[in-house]
Amino acid sequence: MAIQKPSIPKGTRDFSPEIMAKRNFIFDTIKSVFKLYGFQAIETPAMENLSTLLGKYGEEGDKLLFKVLNSGDFLSDVSETELSERNLTKLSTQICEKGLRYDLTVPFARYVVQHRNDIQFPFKRYQIQPVWRADRPQKGRYREFYQCDVDVIGSNSLLNEVELVQIISDVFSKLGLNTITKLNNRKILSGIAEIIGQKDKIVDITVAIDKLDKIGLEAVNKELSEKGLPENAIEQLQPIINLSGNNYQKLDQLSQVLSQSEVGMKGISEMRTIFDYLSAIELNTEVELDLTLARGLNYYTGAIFEVKAKDYAIGSICGGGRYDDLTGIFGLKDVSGVGVSFGADRIFDVLSGLEQFPSSAQATTDLLFVNFGAKEEAYIMPILQKLRKAGINTELFPESDKMKKQMTYADKKSIPFVAIVGENEMTQGTISLKNMISGEQNTMNLEELIVFFKENKK
Amino acid sequence: MAIQKPSIPKGTRDFSPEIMAKRNFIFDTIKSVFKLYGFQAIETPAMENLSTLLGKYGEEGDKLLFKVLNSGDFLSDVSETELSERNLTKLSTQICEKGLRYDLTVPFARYVVQHRNDIQFPFKRYQIQPVWRADRPQKGRYREFYQCDVDVIGSNSLLNEVELVQIISDVFSKLGLNTITKLNNRKILSGIAEIIGQKDKIVDITVAIDKLDKIGLEAVNKELSEKGLPENAIEQLQPIINLSGNNYQKLDQLSQVLSQSEVGMKGISEMRTIFDYLSAIELNTEVELDLTLARGLNYYTGAIFEVKAKDYAIGSICGGGRYDDLTGIFGLKDVSGVGVSFGADRIFDVLSGLEQFPSSAQATTDLLFVNFGAKEEAYIMPILQKLRKAGINTELFPESDKMKKQMTYADKKSIPFVAIVGENEMTQGTISLKNMISGEQNTMNLEELIVFFKENKK
Repeated sequence: MAIQKPSIPKGTRDFSPEIMAKRNFIFDTIKSVFKLYGFQAIETPAMENLSTLLGKYGEEGDKLLFKVLNSGDFLSDVSETELSERNLTKLSTQICEKGLRYDLTVPFARYVVQHRNDIQFPFKRYQIQPVWRADRPQKGRYREFYQCDVDVIGSNSLLNEVELVQIISDVFSKLGLNTITKLNNRKILSGIAEIIGQKDKIVDITVAIDKLDKIGLEAVNKELSEKGLPENAIEQLQPIINLSGNNYQKLDQLSQVLSQSEVGMKGISEMRTIFDYLSAIELNTEVELDLTLARGLNYYTGAIFEVKAKDYAIGSICGGGRYDDLTGIFGLKDVSGVGVSFGADRIFDVLSGLEQFPSSAQATTDLLFVNFGAKEEAYIMPILQKLRKAGINTELFPESDKMKKQMTYADKKSIPFVAIVGENEMTQGTISLKNMISGEQNTMNLEELIVFFKENKK
Repeated sequence: MAIQKPSIPKGTRDFSPEIMAKRNFIFDTIKSVFKLYGFQAIETPAMENLSTLLGKYGEEGDKLLFKVLNSGDFLSDVSETELSERNLTKLSTQICEKGLRYDLTVPFARYVVQHRNDIQFPFKRYQIQPVWRADRPQKGRYREFYQCDVDVIGSNSLLNEVELVQIISDVFSKLGLNTITKLNNRKILSGIAEIIGQKDKIVDITVAIDKLDKIGLEAVNKELSEKGLPENAIEQLQPIINLSGNNYQKLDQLSQVLSQSEVGMKGISEMRTIFDYLSAIELNTEVELDLTLARGLNYYTGAIFEVKAKDYAIGSICGGGRYDDLTGIFGLKDVSGVGVSFGADRIFDVLSGLEQFPSSAQATTDLLFVNFGAKEEAYIMPILQKLRKAGINTELFPESDKMKKQMTYADKKSIPFVAIVGENEMTQGTISLKNMISGEQNTMNLEELIVFFKENKK
């Protein structure tokens, strides 16, 4: 067979041991917090039926689905005429029944409906799995990436929103990052559209407001005008776009503007409740009401969340909101949910950029024994077993190669300590321990070595 | 949009929180042992280029690959003539460039070659990821399932084989399973074929020997005869098929039969070395030389491993071997590796069947606070925070629903303790703790509660 130059599909990645250790530090931290709040893991298959996925992400999303070719005679249902027509959309659903999941939200909705009789509601689940999108690959955008979703479904209580902010606070506190958590509420945005008499313009308005940070007030107003908003409506929007003060002061100002909108006042009341709960507990994230936050307007119906790192310029590192009808498309009405998704790749970039990964995110061997030959191997084998029993990650270099090669191995693998057991040590029942960073060398017996590592690991 | 009845592709599975907790118990146990021996995780993309996968698993394997339809105009390179020819094999590679990985071995080989300049050899890696096969689904056989592979590549030392047996021993000891680890050596099998003058019949011989347990000696001999082995060759095979005694006694008998075969004697010497090392350490698995073990003969070149559960009838739960030219196909010659793969699904079935999952494999909330309303919520929120800070997985039911509903939630979610904080408790600064299994109820303060759970978790 011809020799192939190995490569992987564009937009996909191999993760080396060094990268994996850092990624797992992020995932493990996130998971440990999810569990503290009583969330449980589920997993769904990588492939879903295309009928589950199609039409859920808009026309553009449909194009970005990876479709899986049917096994066997994939053309059996395709006629000569259909083949020669080359209607790609039609043909692709004829020859493909399955697709790779595009996100974790639609599979979760499908899961909830399919297993509704086995699920105890409120259902607190988390899900950490890769998703696939046939997007054009570019810096920071991949065709395969992990999503970390956490949702409560089947409860309207605002305690769930509060809990999600606590989770955000705990996760980023454990990761050592300073963050700001921006909150908004879809009902407030609806109230605004209602008050200015532009109910059908809600999307245009929020899209424009969303750009305030980037393009400034004047350009936002210009865009609103271009989208067909009359001058007086834009005028009415100004106090809203220019809200100031702390969260409660902003809500007070909004109450005055939105007093005639039932939905708007409902949104304000929700946010007041959320802020009341939050003010009673310690948080490690700054919480800010931000009306320019308008993500996920197609499905969010209440609170909207977005988290930014304060010390590193990058998009949002976590976001989500409440959705009142996620499962309707699969036949289960009136099930409200709320959740957020952590952006593992961006969090990785922030921690890398700030050099914030702890040394525990290295996950390598604690101790390497140099290999001097068969006699030493036989002597060391039971020692290795005792060290491992004590929870110390230990290796014996598998061949009695040159010392230099063995030390290079320890160095390249970032193993912090090397043990040397030769003639002298075997006679005296000792182990010489070399610190690979300081170069310091100490002689001790096995018991002392175990104590040393146990102390060292704390 | 029409309402869809939700389902998933055949041969795939959703994993509920209960199942996930048990699966993670298995994966976490395996990973913790891998790390103790200095193995590090890597991950590769779900999709590989089809050119990487095709031709690596035989003609049958090629058919079982899931192929991913190219995005965009997938027919652009297909002519009218080619379309009307309906040559499925040719067409599928024209419209699909990528496929889902079929195992972890080929992607690992590809990884090693592609990143060989960044890898420190010997490379000790583990990889736990799903693989996909378009097999006909049946009981215990899925189209998506996880593999758990652990390999050392770039070292010929037999210490690696010894270490893998130790890993097998540690993993199944931690999982609480009694096992037998069967060992064989491809070189011994080659020696046998050589001695009886049937070098080209090695596959036939081993396939027949492999059936000894199932069909008995007579049928094996019959099959050998049908495969064209002359009577005298079958005669010569008899002492080998009927080896008896302990491992060393078997090797002694083999030495006499194979004394004229260089490769056979090499295999015997390898096994002697491995057994010598193993006899010096404590093992929790029975180790047995078994010449009927003939897995993976297409690529294994030295030791072959297979592990069986002793108390539960199921196929092998772990297996592997040494391969001398895994990476050759990708252009990197003479890199020897050895590894085993743990069968997570079968291990799951064994632990379920023997009811051996520990209670720690439940991974649920430790404590649920009953919700009596807004006043109690405000009182409980800071308490929750302190409990979580102490590492106790704690929930407050999000709505002040009927007591019965809240208790049912705790019960269904297998939460072992429920905390009740009402008027009395708030006045007295206490918490009433109910044991959901015994029904026992105790009153204590927060500090006592934390101590109670810390003791309880040990």
